[in-house]
Amino acid sequence: MPNAAQMAFSPAEYAGRLTAVRTAMAKAGLDVLVVTDPSNQNWLTGYDGWSFYVHQAVVIPLERKPFWWGRRQDANGAQRTVDPDATDIEFYLDHYVQSTVRHPMQDLAAKLRDRGLGTACVGVEMDNYYFSAKAYTSLVDALPHAKVRDATALVNWQRAIKSPAEIEFMRRAARISEKITNLAIDRAAPGVRKNDLAAEIMAAGIAGVDDIWGDYPAIVPLMPSGASAAAPHLTWNGEAMQTGEVTFFELSGCYRRYHVPLSRSVFLGKPPAYILNGEAALVDGLESGLEQARAGNRTCDIANALGDVMERAGIERGARCGYAIGLSYPPDWGERTMSLRPEDETVLQPGMTFHFMPGLWMDGWGLEITESILITEDGPAETFCSIPRKLFIKDG
Amino acid sequence: MPNAAQMAFSPAEYAGRLTAVRTAMAKAGLDVLVVTDPSNQNWLTGYDGWSFYVHQAVVIPLERKPFWWGRRQDANGAQRTVDPDATDIEFYLDHYVQSTVRHPMQDLAAKLRDRGLGTACVGVEMDNYYFSAKAYTSLVDALPHAKVRDATALVNWQRAIKSPAEIEFMRRAARISEKITNLAIDRAAPGVRKNDLAAEIMAAGIAGVDDIWGDYPAIVPLMPSGASAAAPHLTWNGEAMQTGEVTFFELSGCYRRYHVPLSRSVFLGKPPAYILNGEAALVDGLESGLEQARAGNRTCDIANALGDVMERAGIERGARCGYAIGLSYPPDWGERTMSLRPEDETVLQPGMTFHFMPGLWMDGWGLEITESILITEDGPAETFCSIPRKLFIKDG
Repeated sequence: MPNAAQMAFSPAEYAGRLTAVRTAMAKAGLDVLVVTDPSNQNWLTGYDGWSFYVHQAVVIPLERKPFWWGRRQDANGAQRTVDPDATDIEFYLDHYVQSTVRHPMQDLAAKLRDRGLGTACVGVEMDNYYFSAKAYTSLVDALPHAKVRDATALVNWQRAIKSPAEIEFMRRAARISEKITNLAIDRAAPGVRKNDLAAEIMAAGIAGVDDIWGDYPAIVPLMPSGASAAAPHLTWNGEAMQTGEVTFFELSGCYRRYHVPLSRSVFLGKPPAYILNGEAALVDGLESGLEQARAGNRTCDIANALGDVMERAGIERGARCGYAIGLSYPPDWGERTMSLRPEDETVLQPGMTFHFMPGLWMDGWGLEITESILITEDGPAETFCSIPRKLFIKDG
Repeated sequence: MPNAAQMAFSPAEYAGRLTAVRTAMAKAGLDVLVVTDPSNQNWLTGYDGWSFYVHQAVVIPLERKPFWWGRRQDANGAQRTVDPDATDIEFYLDHYVQSTVRHPMQDLAAKLRDRGLGTACVGVEMDNYYFSAKAYTSLVDALPHAKVRDATALVNWQRAIKSPAEIEFMRRAARISEKITNLAIDRAAPGVRKNDLAAEIMAAGIAGVDDIWGDYPAIVPLMPSGASAAAPHLTWNGEAMQTGEVTFFELSGCYRRYHVPLSRSVFLGKPPAYILNGEAALVDGLESGLEQARAGNRTCDIANALGDVMERAGIERGARCGYAIGLSYPPDWGERTMSLRPEDETVLQPGMTFHFMPGLWMDGWGLEITESILITEDGPAETFCSIPRKLFIKDG
């Protein structure tokens, strides 16, 4: 079992999280919540492991002790990372894994029935990477007397305002983000193979900064060049960087699963006017948006401030310009609650954290200059990282 | 658009894959298949990008041209990686992303109706990381006159027998797997921080071997030590390796998304008898299993050969001992079709590839010695990697 030093947060902090989730469950009329999002599982219990490729969950009954549930061999991992005083550990046998004749959710349904929850109102995270369509239909079929309800993001929303301990973790992640972004800017040069640069970035991030050891980021380095930078999610290949191209680096340090993403762009050579114009608009838009990123304002105020600048510059973006961040696992370092966009009207509160990310993905080129931010008690948001907010030009 | 050199395989190879999938679709009575597994999307069209955290699909009508469908900004990535002669590109607007009021599958349903497929028999990959419960219910609700049917693994099964070009990619991945496994064995020593070693392994894998550039593996280095090695899926932390502990390294090189995983274990100091007994059983079991890994035998024959050795050694494993491998994306480098276990009776055919992985996850310790294998025309399987099949002991 983990000792207190191995747990990321205090027992009191975990207990407070559980209480917040149960309050939200009661409000939603749920008797029990099946938490399949690995970041929610970690946030609630400390469970950590690359085992989310098989079905697993943290189950929160409204009134009984929660339990972690997963594959038998991963129960060993739960014993190493979860506080047994707060969370029981249950498992299913290996013949449920990737079987065509039985599904792990049948095992979970039996365990719910054993706890008298066979007729309960069961919340599930319907729109989540790790709660498949088959998991849903299997659970519904195996619990014919239960009411299965959508509770997507119920836990994620409880995570929106970070505790002081979480903010400290994010500050540590930010030190790593700064280190790898500076490294990318420093090393980018004509002839450097993209994969070699990705290797250096990844290694520097995992090595971390002093005793801030680096965890794996939920997204690998995104660093497309030239015409490929029109596409935000291409990864690297074995080609060399070339003069005359812009490359953006969208990177994040990770400390104990907390992320602080950051993007900066590098031009090798002398940039054309349209790229300099894009840079000017992005920097203006960022600064305009940051000015609005204050407690009491709304998420859309940030997006609209950016949008006004973009419109004046004649640039049509279309995409949202940011999202909540914090604890995460692959495939996404976003928290999947608030988005920075005109239709999102969430009121900003101190302790909320976002990646404010107005990327440009244009016809034949792209540019990203972004900031991860913390909403403060007073005044404009704090940026987690401190790297000049500009296009880096390396000309000869 | 990608040129022929940028595509991983020839147009003829992609065309053959499409034909195989359509044959399987016709047999299953499907008019159209919605392929949400990113590895299946890549295998069918070449699409590559870290965009699987939003809803996307390759859609294969039985009789019309296939189309890639995803987020607007990722359509730029599709244009860079997909052959437009073979696959059209469609997209949805950004206000569908992580919205609480609309779902991307509503957009896909409209595009299916536009093609006259609103009353079709639609196959979906029900048990897949990237086809959520909500995606399923949204698609069903938006296509009230269609029949939506489970086609989990229909495409994956077409991938079971690798082409010569795919086997060549796997041989390249294997060179990277050997490099990083040798590095891990070489660098493991008392006092080495786990994250620093993970950083070196990750960097060496991405740097690759000569012109074999390294892609990101679908699973990060798994390398638990001591009592944590009882849990197969724990990742690293900032603690130092210690004398008296066994560490297993489960690693994979990746070349253009093809994986060849391999595990070896290292003991620092003088191992106790129970670990040496475990090693002896594992090596015997591996060799017994490899002897059975022949075309015409069945997957269970490999598992049973291993199981007999384990039983004689008094070791109860319980877990399956391997799975099909090939093209993959996070969170899993397995192909999710065949498993090596007593209840799987698939007949082995030349060109099939597996990770034969009999890990031991015992009470307070663990050990992994594994091989990735290719079923050949004659004789026993070929191992992709060539590293001594033993526990590496570093004593002083």
